[in-house]
Amino acid sequence: MSSKFFAVVAGAGPGTGRATAIRFSKAYPVVLITRNPENFQGTVAEINNAGGKAIGISADASDVKSLDSAFETIAKELPGLKLAAAIFNVGGNLNRKPFLELTADDFDAALGANARGLFNFAQKTVPLLLESVPISEHPPTLIITGATASIRGSYLWSVAAAGMFARRALGQSLAREFGPKGIHVAHAIVDGVIDIPRTTHYTVNNGAEDGKIRADAIAESYWGLHTQHRSAFTQEIDIRPYVEKF
Amino acid sequence: MSSKFFAVVAGAGPGTGRATAIRFSKAYPVVLITRNPENFQGTVAEINNAGGKAIGISADASDVKSLDSAFETIAKELPGLKLAAAIFNVGGNLNRKPFLELTADDFDAALGANARGLFNFAQKTVPLLLESVPISEHPPTLIITGATASIRGSYLWSVAAAGMFARRALGQSLAREFGPKGIHVAHAIVDGVIDIPRTTHYTVNNGAEDGKIRADAIAESYWGLHTQHRSAFTQEIDIRPYVEKF
Amino acid sequence: MSSKFFAVVAGAGPGTGRATAIRFSKAYPVVLITRNPENFQGTVAEINNAGGKAIGISADASDVKSLDSAFETIAKELPGLKLAAAIFNVGGNLNRKPFLELTADDFDAALGANARGLFNFAQKTVPLLLESVPISEHPPTLIITGATASIRGSYLWSVAAAGMFARRALGQSLAREFGPKGIHVAHAIVDGVIDIPRTTHYTVNNGAEDGKIRADAIAESYWGLHTQHRSAFTQEIDIRPYVEKF
Amino acid sequence: MSSKFFAVVAGAGPGTGRATAIRFSKAYPVVLITRNPENFQGTVAEINNAGGKAIGISADASDVKSLDSAFETIAKELPGLKLAAAIFNVGGNLNRKPFLELTADDFDAALGANARGLFNFAQKTVPLLLESVPISEHPPTLIITGATASIRGSYLWSVAAAGMFARRALGQSLAREFGPKGIHVAHAIVDGVIDIPRTTHYTVNNGAEDGKIRADAIAESYWGLHTQHRSAFTQEIDIRPYVEKF
Repeated sequence: MSSKFFAVVAGAGPGTGRATAIRFSKAYPVVLITRNPENFQGTVAEINNAGGKAIGISADASDVKSLDSAFETIAKELPGLKLAAAIFNVGGNLNRKPFLELTADDFDAALGANARGLFNFAQKTVPLLLESVPISEHPPTLIITGATASIRGSYLWSVAAAGMFARRALGQSLAREFGPKGIHVAHAIVDGVIDIPRTTHYTVNNGAEDGKIRADAIAESYWGLHTQHRSAFTQEIDIRPYVEKF
Repeated sequence: MSSKFFAVVAGAGPGTGRATAIRFSKAYPVVLITRNPENFQGTVAEINNAGGKAIGISADASDVKSLDSAFETIAKELPGLKLAAAIFNVGGNLNRKPFLELTADDFDAALGANARGLFNFAQKTVPLLLESVPISEHPPTLIITGATASIRGSYLWSVAAAGMFARRALGQSLAREFGPKGIHVAHAIVDGVIDIPRTTHYTVNNGAEDGKIRADAIAESYWGLHTQHRSAFTQEIDIRPYVEKF
Repeated sequence: MSSKFFAVVAGAGPGTGRATAIRFSKAYPVVLITRNPENFQGTVAEINNAGGKAIGISADASDVKSLDSAFETIAKELPGLKLAAAIFNVGGNLNRKPFLELTADDFDAALGANARGLFNFAQKTVPLLLESVPISEHPPTLIITGATASIRGSYLWSVAAAGMFARRALGQSLAREFGPKGIHVAHAIVDGVIDIPRTTHYTVNNGAEDGKIRADAIAESYWGLHTQHRSAFTQEIDIRPYVEKF
Repeated sequence: MSSKFFAVVAGAGPGTGRATAIRFSKAYPVVLITRNPENFQGTVAEINNAGGKAIGISADASDVKSLDSAFETIAKELPGLKLAAAIFNVGGNLNRKPFLELTADDFDAALGANARGLFNFAQKTVPLLLESVPISEHPPTLIITGATASIRGSYLWSVAAAGMFARRALGQSLAREFGPKGIHVAHAIVDGVIDIPRTTHYTVNNGAEDGKIRADAIAESYWGLHTQHRSAFTQEIDIRPYVEKF
């Protein structure tokens, strides 16, 4: 366990966020950020009980002040530690409605959660990642969780897709701007239902075994992205169950 | 000239908007919407002097109330006319800055202009286009102007691309939702500098003849999209000068 | 009718080829090339009876010698005429089988029909199109018919998609090489079933009216591509029925 | 080291092939296939000297009989072993010429090397991979090396891109057909110059440190793909140096 670096996961609820925090906690102290503290408490305890180090902070990434405050807390709680990896996993706003039933507020909510949150998170983390470039073992990494709606607009998904497309655009822009400065920015298109308590009763892919995505498998791929050599960065991956239609 | 239908162009400044208004005015009365009336006055006069019919309305598409008011004006000025074509051509917000010099306000401005404006415009025009489906000669059409930044995020273009990706997502979603109901939704990726007074002194493509896009050529392609048979809709086209690198 | 130029359509069977030949015959003498003369005879007669000029040549585009001979015939039959437009519409080889039932011969057949045919056709037509650049009214044009399999490999479509992807790659490469020299190279992704005698009894899109693509609608879009100004070339369009899922 | 399974690398010359063979030899006996035995001899010796097990076979993947013979040799040399991973890394045919200087033979050579080789290799390996599905630790894997030309046709790259697009189409088709049967088919777009003896004197990315791709970094990502859980397969990744423009 490196004591010089930490990782931060925004959107650390059950599923990808929790699994990523656990995976990265094997190497770094981790900070879990969610709006609702109930969503990080169990994971924080689990990591600390297992001999790792985790702290949880309640904040809303789509709100600049809330995120400012979160990073002030981090600076106090983890003094002197540098940022090795930042994972933006805030759940997409999935306001699934026919277009004409949506309001301008729905649009703003979707764009706020899906895209402005990443904008704010990157504003806070990119300067910290830049500081780590000369000293970290692995290239400092910003990983962004996307979804099918990141590359496909469709019926019922108009504002969700607008936000997820925008999220992906930010990711590409950051990769092209900060890759040459040594930061690895990667975007993952997660195309399938994740196997979490909330989805236990969903029947997907005709109920096939492993037809839902294991969150720890996503986390393992994220760790793989983090540890890529800077001569061989991956900017985008897709992740889906073997039985998923695509 | 049909007297039963009209067309509306949002973002009717010099360039694509003006040329599209002129092209569609050969078939329909046209409504030009821009924030600054100076941007439509010349074109409105030109169309009316040429024997067509045009009205200009000052409104901001990113503001719901402003757009509501504009469509109330349209209903009064063109009583009984149905909507044949709606063109969203509002200029992309191109807040070109290094990422770390941008603020959350810059993000909101870019998303507002590039994406929320289309959301609002579609909320107003899709119901009108639906009314025209059973009666119009050509399938009622919503055409959306995009740009290179609609499909590529890059250095200096992060928030502009976020907004343009979101615009494209809305266009895809609308096409998939309303195509089966008879509305033709098309998105054009305009990849190059348009030849307008403001760009006269730009040197692009090494100064090659026709190295800037003629706005009337874009307008002709938009007319081609509008007149496609419903069995053969195009959802997306690219448009660029023969000498443009891509 | 221009008497200085002609158009050539390879793959001029019923459907897109026939309709394109008829559409372009309004402006140019047209040459129809198919392997089986039965596939062009009716269309040739129809055009000539309607006051246009058409000739049919039996040739196999995937065979260099066969195509050489065809263009020698053209030079004799239409002496002095320059080439304004070349349309490659040779039907995709759709050897739809599970992968393990395919043989290397199936692979070669699919690549030959779907890609080598275009390679050969472009070798013959690009030099002729280059000669027309300085003198033709519209930029000399090479239009290539693609399909869903041009952008998506899938079960049963492996070798068909391999050939159609290759066809699209050639189109992109030709556009980037010869666009700056004044030739307009465009690729159309035709995504749906075309309404021809052979498909009359197919039920597609739940039998919706206009649920199959009208070939004359494709031809009209091809004519629109041909007449685009060189400052505003489209490289790729998609074409599908309003009710098609995509 | 599992003694029940082996891996095979076609195109095992210096660079990605060699590095992949070395990486996979930590877990499996490996078979290296190249046309020229000089290209595998050093690597085979290196692996065997390091305590691994490797055999080299001279064969041409674009020739069915040659590949048949190679797999007969494998069956004799590694009796009873099942196939865990097959990597197709045959170097793209890069017949870089202006289009009008190419011949039909150039086309056939490019398609043969870039696409027919994979067709043949998959015909041989997919049945073997299917046998391993029920028993292997990691999902049996077919990894295909692609390049920038897999997704972009351009000047000088017409036939190379045609072949690489076709290769990618086969990969997508195989993934969609055999993913649900438990085989992981992944395609890697390697976008940059690989750091091998032949490229030592190339100046790329302005001579930046790590501006060429380390082959062992590619191999590590391939190993990551091989070990993904079947609920979270990646179908396509890109790989490029941090300083590469894209």
